[in-house]
Amino acid sequence: MTQRTLIKNLVSSTDGPVSVSGWVETVRDQKKVQFVVLRDESGAVQLVHPRIFNEDGTPADDAIAEEISALSQGTFLTATGDLKHDERVKLGGVEIKLDGLEIAARAIAETPIADDSGVDKRMDWRFLDLRVPKNSLIFKIQTTFEHALRCYWIDNDFVELHTPKLMASASESRAELFEVEYFETKAYLAQSPQFFKQMAQPAGFGKIFEIGPAFRADPSFTSRHATEFTSVDAEISWIDSHETVMTMHEELMVAGFTAVKEKHGAEIEALYGLEVTVPTTPFPRIALAEAKRIVAERGYEVPRQDDDMDPEGERQIAAYVKETYGHEFVFLTDYASSIRPFYHMRNAEDGAVTNSYDLIFNGVEISTGAQREHRIEVLVEQAKEKGLDPEELDFYLDFFRYGVPPHGGFGMGLSRVLMLMLKLPNLREATYLFRGPTRLTP
Amino acid sequence: MTQRTLIKNLVSSTDGPVSVSGWVETVRDQKKVQFVVLRDESGAVQLVHPRIFNEDGTPADDAIAEEISALSQGTFLTATGDLKHDERVKLGGVEIKLDGLEIAARAIAETPIADDSGVDKRMDWRFLDLRVPKNSLIFKIQTTFEHALRCYWIDNDFVELHTPKLMASASESRAELFEVEYFETKAYLAQSPQFFKQMAQPAGFGKIFEIGPAFRADPSFTSRHATEFTSVDAEISWIDSHETVMTMHEELMVAGFTAVKEKHGAEIEALYGLEVTVPTTPFPRIALAEAKRIVAERGYEVPRQDDDMDPEGERQIAAYVKETYGHEFVFLTDYASSIRPFYHMRNAEDGAVTNSYDLIFNGVEISTGAQREHRIEVLVEQAKEKGLDPEELDFYLDFFRYGVPPHGGFGMGLSRVLMLMLKLPNLREATYLFRGPTRLTP
Repeated sequence: MTQRTLIKNLVSSTDGPVSVSGWVETVRDQKKVQFVVLRDESGAVQLVHPRIFNEDGTPADDAIAEEISALSQGTFLTATGDLKHDERVKLGGVEIKLDGLEIAARAIAETPIADDSGVDKRMDWRFLDLRVPKNSLIFKIQTTFEHALRCYWIDNDFVELHTPKLMASASESRAELFEVEYFETKAYLAQSPQFFKQMAQPAGFGKIFEIGPAFRADPSFTSRHATEFTSVDAEISWIDSHETVMTMHEELMVAGFTAVKEKHGAEIEALYGLEVTVPTTPFPRIALAEAKRIVAERGYEVPRQDDDMDPEGERQIAAYVKETYGHEFVFLTDYASSIRPFYHMRNAEDGAVTNSYDLIFNGVEISTGAQREHRIEVLVEQAKEKGLDPEELDFYLDFFRYGVPPHGGFGMGLSRVLMLMLKLPNLREATYLFRGPTRLTP
Repeated sequence: MTQRTLIKNLVSSTDGPVSVSGWVETVRDQKKVQFVVLRDESGAVQLVHPRIFNEDGTPADDAIAEEISALSQGTFLTATGDLKHDERVKLGGVEIKLDGLEIAARAIAETPIADDSGVDKRMDWRFLDLRVPKNSLIFKIQTTFEHALRCYWIDNDFVELHTPKLMASASESRAELFEVEYFETKAYLAQSPQFFKQMAQPAGFGKIFEIGPAFRADPSFTSRHATEFTSVDAEISWIDSHETVMTMHEELMVAGFTAVKEKHGAEIEALYGLEVTVPTTPFPRIALAEAKRIVAERGYEVPRQDDDMDPEGERQIAAYVKETYGHEFVFLTDYASSIRPFYHMRNAEDGAVTNSYDLIFNGVEISTGAQREHRIEVLVEQAKEKGLDPEELDFYLDFFRYGVPPHGGFGMGLSRVLMLMLKLPNLREATYLFRGPTRLTP
């Protein structure tokens, strides 16, 4: 039997016997000749079958023709035939004249979703939705992006962690925590690997990373939130300030975007009409207070009681950065202590602000990073100030009592990066199987 | 200020001013000279300080000496001084004559664990336990192993998935499922990505992988089980049989072991007294019935009512394979249909056995793989036969109704591989933070 050839490799294959496997995208069942467009994970090709006629012009016995006429869209099959390069064929300049079809699994004739189906309906039938090349491309890009990040980390001697998602107590706040029945007790799903990745610092790991799930029982419906998401985390020892973390972070983004542009740039342009821009370093950095001033000058007053930015403010400052520096990224730094968690280190000169940042990409926050407070007395004080009970945090505080290096890191939402890179309308498009307050299936 | 040098790089550095950062492992506070062994993530180095005396022989003012005398084990600090190569120094042939110490965080003098502490006590203080080079090495090896697997997958055009861990219903059986309070309803934690990774096949992804957490509410206490573990999964389309899956699987193991041996072989030999063996391919394959016959010939009757192997049987067959073929791995194949899940494809000639396998490494099962049944009528029939209600499985069965390629894959426990590679006594040693029926902390 002929070995399967991936469809993308047909162009560089020599004419002659060939075997391809994939699913039926379209069938054109004409009187004299039949065409099938077969797609696999790498591309699509036209299969052609000239019908057979008797000498008197009546249709002859033709098993292949009958098979093709009975094909439903989505049927998975292996086709064997003669590969022929022909530049008149629009689809890749090749076609396969069929010798035979072997059906792996017939699709039922029903097509539950169409091009104009709403996103909810499409998510119900996600496995069909993902057959669309534009949609599956997202996950090929994600694969390339993640791999580039991991290669950067490996080259720089980071250790990969798999921190537990089951916890005995809350990591940050009791709000938005999922509760799990755990034998005779309760457990909680980790909202982030925060405490566990910090633990690697007093453990002497030096530099660590993790890409894994995180869970938030957030009942809100926005385009940017999910109850389960993939968190990209890194944490490093012996930093001078959050600046060290930002430097690593921007180098990672450059590595990721470079790999994506190289491997998928042409396809992204073809399917999304977008050119991927590899960001230049250093990314612009703007202290939050300054960012609010700039936004106010543009005529937007952030409607918040606290010192935080809001989504519209983030869009405005991103627009300013784009106009001024031609950059899609901006680090907003020096967030007020009042709106940051107790474990963010505060500025040595001005305790009202923290050594922390948010990374904004195309107008939306994708990440929060910071230097962590590693001085136990200060840490306990800051926890109390936030109304937390140090006793409940005891297992975490122990990490600091037995020696710890200065350290910091970031957490970043993977699907957010993809969403903003491809200018997708919401997170659901950038998630293999989305989970939200009312979505637990498929 | 002098840039930090990693301790492992001191040997190749030139003599002169140098700065290192790490934690205090030991202090030898002698009358004429003081020694500190400082360790970082890359190694350990001796810091030396000759005490200063007045002309009359009495101790002079000596701030560094006082600082050293006050050092507690575990204190994190930055040391600056003069690097000197001296082959008489046992620890790496270099030492640093101190100019100054900058304390990052003092450790309290207490040392909650010692060399002879029990494993439970050590797990309570895991961040201290991981400062021991032998223990942290495990996670460096794991990092290298995983990266080699991912590089193999990337080179072979696999797509990386992040499947949801929150599910609306059971994936395989209702037993051993953790239940989550999910807004107005219940969710369950995925025991494996089985259904979701299979979904990628009718979605046309071709080949996929995932390394992520899986959860089993298994109340048993064994050296091989955890309630949360890291599962290594792959699934591929257009296979001929489980043989295609086994070929990929053994190539992956070779890639992983080769990388580990190259990068950590010497250190594993030094700290564990073990030589890493890169397995040869093909791995031995033995049908389960034959394996039971061999084991019986060795005088061991598997004490089970069903057709399965037991742990002692796995050890026996592994011993046989080691003696006969000199191989640490063996694929046990053709497991009986009665003891395999409904979605395993059955042998075309003999429906009593499945196209499935377990991979045994050093006598313990580390993985289960199989060709999946992709013919919807057969699949529904097999589900019913196992007492499952096809309606409850409807979302899964849909994957097969709209066309699907023949496919198969495996799931493998990451910590098990590490445990058996390093001959560790239990899974807890090979897990960053172990989770068991009575362990949810730290």
